[in-house]
Amino acid sequence: MKTTDLAENKALLIEEPVCYSDNTSPVHPTIMQALVDANSGRAHAYGRDADSKAMKGLFSQVFERDVDVSIVTTGTAANALALAAVCPPFGSIYVSHHAHTLNDECGAPEMFTAGAKVMPIEDISGKLTAHALETCLREAGIGQMKRTQPAAISLAQVTELGTVYSLDELRSLTDVARAYDLRVHMDGARFSNAIAHLRCTPAEMTWKIGVDVLSFGATKGGALAAEAVIFFRKELADAAQYRTKRAGHVLSKMRYISAQWRAYLKDDLWLEIARLSNARARELAEKLESLCGGKIVYPVQANEVFVRFAPVVIDRLLEAGHQVFRSRYDRLRFVTAWDTTSEDIDRHIAAIGSVERCPLDLQ
Amino acid sequence: MKTTDLAENKALLIEEPVCYSDNTSPVHPTIMQALVDANSGRAHAYGRDADSKAMKGLFSQVFERDVDVSIVTTGTAANALALAAVCPPFGSIYVSHHAHTLNDECGAPEMFTAGAKVMPIEDISGKLTAHALETCLREAGIGQMKRTQPAAISLAQVTELGTVYSLDELRSLTDVARAYDLRVHMDGARFSNAIAHLRCTPAEMTWKIGVDVLSFGATKGGALAAEAVIFFRKELADAAQYRTKRAGHVLSKMRYISAQWRAYLKDDLWLEIARLSNARARELAEKLESLCGGKIVYPVQANEVFVRFAPVVIDRLLEAGHQVFRSRYDRLRFVTAWDTTSEDIDRHIAAIGSVERCPLDLQ
Amino acid sequence: MKTTDLAENKALLIEEPVCYSDNTSPVHPTIMQALVDANSGRAHAYGRDADSKAMKGLFSQVFERDVDVSIVTTGTAANALALAAVCPPFGSIYVSHHAHTLNDECGAPEMFTAGAKVMPIEDISGKLTAHALETCLREAGIGQMKRTQPAAISLAQVTELGTVYSLDELRSLTDVARAYDLRVHMDGARFSNAIAHLRCTPAEMTWKIGVDVLSFGATKGGALAAEAVIFFRKELADAAQYRTKRAGHVLSKMRYISAQWRAYLKDDLWLEIARLSNARARELAEKLESLCGGKIVYPVQANEVFVRFAPVVIDRLLEAGHQVFRSRYDRLRFVTAWDTTSEDIDRHIAAIGSVERCPLDLQ
Amino acid sequence: MKTTDLAENKALLIEEPVCYSDNTSPVHPTIMQALVDANSGRAHAYGRDADSKAMKGLFSQVFERDVDVSIVTTGTAANALALAAVCPPFGSIYVSHHAHTLNDECGAPEMFTAGAKVMPIEDISGKLTAHALETCLREAGIGQMKRTQPAAISLAQVTELGTVYSLDELRSLTDVARAYDLRVHMDGARFSNAIAHLRCTPAEMTWKIGVDVLSFGATKGGALAAEAVIFFRKELADAAQYRTKRAGHVLSKMRYISAQWRAYLKDDLWLEIARLSNARARELAEKLESLCGGKIVYPVQANEVFVRFAPVVIDRLLEAGHQVFRSRYDRLRFVTAWDTTSEDIDRHIAAIGSVERCPLDLQ
Repeated sequence: MKTTDLAENKALLIEEPVCYSDNTSPVHPTIMQALVDANSGRAHAYGRDADSKAMKGLFSQVFERDVDVSIVTTGTAANALALAAVCPPFGSIYVSHHAHTLNDECGAPEMFTAGAKVMPIEDISGKLTAHALETCLREAGIGQMKRTQPAAISLAQVTELGTVYSLDELRSLTDVARAYDLRVHMDGARFSNAIAHLRCTPAEMTWKIGVDVLSFGATKGGALAAEAVIFFRKELADAAQYRTKRAGHVLSKMRYISAQWRAYLKDDLWLEIARLSNARARELAEKLESLCGGKIVYPVQANEVFVRFAPVVIDRLLEAGHQVFRSRYDRLRFVTAWDTTSEDIDRHIAAIGSVERCPLDLQ
Repeated sequence: MKTTDLAENKALLIEEPVCYSDNTSPVHPTIMQALVDANSGRAHAYGRDADSKAMKGLFSQVFERDVDVSIVTTGTAANALALAAVCPPFGSIYVSHHAHTLNDECGAPEMFTAGAKVMPIEDISGKLTAHALETCLREAGIGQMKRTQPAAISLAQVTELGTVYSLDELRSLTDVARAYDLRVHMDGARFSNAIAHLRCTPAEMTWKIGVDVLSFGATKGGALAAEAVIFFRKELADAAQYRTKRAGHVLSKMRYISAQWRAYLKDDLWLEIARLSNARARELAEKLESLCGGKIVYPVQANEVFVRFAPVVIDRLLEAGHQVFRSRYDRLRFVTAWDTTSEDIDRHIAAIGSVERCPLDLQ
Repeated sequence: MKTTDLAENKALLIEEPVCYSDNTSPVHPTIMQALVDANSGRAHAYGRDADSKAMKGLFSQVFERDVDVSIVTTGTAANALALAAVCPPFGSIYVSHHAHTLNDECGAPEMFTAGAKVMPIEDISGKLTAHALETCLREAGIGQMKRTQPAAISLAQVTELGTVYSLDELRSLTDVARAYDLRVHMDGARFSNAIAHLRCTPAEMTWKIGVDVLSFGATKGGALAAEAVIFFRKELADAAQYRTKRAGHVLSKMRYISAQWRAYLKDDLWLEIARLSNARARELAEKLESLCGGKIVYPVQANEVFVRFAPVVIDRLLEAGHQVFRSRYDRLRFVTAWDTTSEDIDRHIAAIGSVERCPLDLQ
Repeated sequence: MKTTDLAENKALLIEEPVCYSDNTSPVHPTIMQALVDANSGRAHAYGRDADSKAMKGLFSQVFERDVDVSIVTTGTAANALALAAVCPPFGSIYVSHHAHTLNDECGAPEMFTAGAKVMPIEDISGKLTAHALETCLREAGIGQMKRTQPAAISLAQVTELGTVYSLDELRSLTDVARAYDLRVHMDGARFSNAIAHLRCTPAEMTWKIGVDVLSFGATKGGALAAEAVIFFRKELADAAQYRTKRAGHVLSKMRYISAQWRAYLKDDLWLEIARLSNARARELAEKLESLCGGKIVYPVQANEVFVRFAPVVIDRLLEAGHQVFRSRYDRLRFVTAWDTTSEDIDRHIAAIGSVERCPLDLQ
């Protein structure tokens, strides 16, 4: 009996990391072409080439105001550099329990801030709430020498659970932050997906409602390695170039990173990709719900789907060799990307369906 | 009179950063092709793809023994991570006065080591000497609580002045280091050029004579952004993955960095490029010497040429808009790369010659 | 009505910080005399005087084995130096939610470790449990690059809630720590009170059950400023002198700190003081329980008493000008010390009693 | 022959560290009495006692303007905290080659600033010159991303070689500092001796000529352990309490440090001691000059004397067991203190004289 299942499983086997993470997709062809095109002639290094010098103008256009920019190659670097700009060594940064900055960067914020505290507070579906934030701040011992001092909040938009703050939710948080003189950092590793969901402008989702510094990611959206720290307050950007260099994050052949950004932002490619991957995620979620045993855990608002299954279902998938991402609490996480197809989704549905139908003779 | 000179100058004008730095050259076509080839299908992120997992084996082959490897994208990151592996916060690292780690990394070694001292000692043509090192160590206050403790030496091979340590010179340094229980770091941003000059094996120039950790660079040699920290002692590598992640230097789409390394090392491309750029540097040096006013300052052993001119000559070149690199003490630095041609060299000779011949009516 | 109460209150007013903290008491006369006695003649500085050199031997006797010692002047310094010895920058230190190292040192552990994470886990009455520790460790992502790596636990004995771990409780924790290759730090700011409660030897409460490094405090016990880091593993002490100096914690006239330690440890003065203050705390707790509204919150095992009152009672005490320490959740914390008398205790009982009896017409 | 000499030597033997360092002297009786007097009753901890709260006022009086103050117990802590207030992690601090902050604090400035560079520049008799400073600053690469950015100068007044900057010399330095927007730190471990030498006011030697932050030491002047960071710019003091706490430098029983300061500053005790020890240094220097072989190396302007002897003389003194401080280049350093007597001085003269007269049959 079990043999048959495994045979069926084998036919459906997902060996590639499909819908596993948006980091597993290749580079979008338009962006790769931009790299190839950039590869001619000499150009000054360390960001002094024409393309890189144009970055400030490019992002200022996207955000409808003058911004300062540091271009880097990883989201962890972008986050840590942004946080170092808003938090002193004796400061605290408030984040959700699920925050990438808390759990998944091996202490990069601590390294770049020279020892600040990243403090998790309660969230709802990955989103900080103004209430939880204010409660913490009231007990934070502001002005007390023995306590690290509240300096910033860092929120992910899209959150680590695939949810998206509404503009009102963001504003209620930034209002509290302002009231307590905290700076606001937005981790926008999936910034484009949030914009696509909210159908607002980048300006509306950031500085217009009180975001001070943004990590804007293109890598998950289809770049090879292109991230940016966007500073909406000039004074926060003053030290940025030194901090970036000192962390080893100024690439000598910067033109190739700038070229990725230019291609990504041109003709709204970034939004087109985000809309597509968001749509694929909804498609996947709908089909997952049609399976008897799955339950979508968080609202699917961007390109991530978290679904809860009986542990035995997940165990079987993994044992059979399927490349699926098991998140905490017996959930599977799926992430769609620019290259996700309906066929990819159907393969997952088939694979899970096949395992679900197995007699539960295990355990 | 002067007008004529400027007109002539204009015709010869070097607007591109030719021979300005090996960082200004484009990516070598073979390496760019490797990037294009790597761009198909999904692959696991953060170094868990097949290509990246093969890196350890690849470098172990190059170095003829088991090594550990951290792949990063900048030389500054490679150096700082290497130094963090060999020096505690209360340690000292001995370098030359010209060291990149001392002058050109905005304090990256200090950041990554959490505050160690980078201590310059006397050098000859950019090279540390065993004598100067030993003199410093004798007065370093080893075991005295108030003194930072000697922990490592860091030497650049090729040096920042374009010279290359002989194997004997290296050995005499590592002998002193061993006698004082110091670790040895080699900054090999231009490792290939040194190997091409010495005609020895990578093993002979590193672990066989006492190098503990190496920053091995491919970027200056023609890659887009590919550097590696090579650990020749297992215990130094234990913490490397955490330090690298924490510094934001683990790329999610690592396969594209690994692909560069594979292409660079394949069929001795790296050595071929190094031999070519070294030869071009010698060619440039010979022609510069034929100019009446120039004087080659250091032995030309790799792909860099330092030449001294009257300040007025340099001023005129710069005023006329030539892209030349003025180093300290009225010197021009030229760097050849994989794409440097004899025509490039001749343009420089012509440009300088034209300016030299000008009546010295300035100042 | 209220006027009368306030008048009565005034008569009972506690203006001095009595039972407020063991840090508010003066120096014990025996220890002050030792300072006066030490004040004759010249002595070498920075710990090279005879008294200071004897410290290692003195503590080795107290702990019945060879130990290494760093003498400092604050508990925060002792804790931070101890933690820096057991935790790398990319490590995590597990503590209780009430830990001084977490809440009350303004990030000293983060500063001294160069950015490690201090991670609170669930506790019972201030005590870490083996179960909570193991649960956390199982999900800590050991070996995963993106996670800070579990390196140590830090437990306070006496805890911040005035409770004392039994030897069995300690052993169950250190067993888990060993199983996961973690080091164990004990914050012994009130070490003497714990020893007095458990009636065991210092050795039994530390290295014999797996403690690796101890912050041993004398200041709260009656010294002017005398703390010690006791290393039970030689290899942890190797860097201690450099770390201590570098943090500015090596006093030039060290003999005066050593003199305090000698006086404190001589003829069991330290234990005598601890027994007395523990007894006073029990006395206070018993009398507080006799008041109608108070409720002792945690077992009184050392020299601290936490008692819950209606918020209005605490508000009135504070409004009337009483020097009482309001801890979280509408509790008063009392701490007894070497100089606490029964009269001190009775004054508190009278003051609270007087306020409690007030008609509750406030808000 | 030699036996006789040694016998004579024995009679003259200086076994105590007399004139060895001002840190080897005991606490001045007036200050010790202040400690005894402070030891009564309870007082709030961590600087909230009345005496400690009065410190700001006390120092404001001394400096004839509003100042901010952090009270600590070591000079290394005072220096490092002061430097952290004026230099970011990517900054440089210019000092003399002899600076305590460079050589004798095991990297404390690097630790407290999170990795800034302490950069030695040329000095004359321990004093920075405006010329050397400006030369360095011109080549410092201000605004260049790859260079650490000049942020501060740190000068010792008295210098590490016992010399004292004139007010004009100080002003010429602070003028350069201002021109380059650098902050000025004065290491005043022997501040009183400099004031006594210059016969100026504390205000004249500090903020009136451009000093921004001062480490003011009382320990070498006769306190047990009392140092202060004096901030002359309010904005530099904002973070001071958090940095101090985080470094473990806020003593719980702070009143005992404040008491030392009060006693030291009262009735000009501090100046009286300084005048006396300066006078003793001059006396010692004069008598040393009368010895045939000695040569005073630097102007004796405070309480330190550096004298050069033939190495054999120093060797003999040390071999015979004399407690003398051999500084670099075959010099003896003598330091006088509040308790130095003419007899102490004569003993040294006799001891050296006896050794000098020995037939030079050694070696």
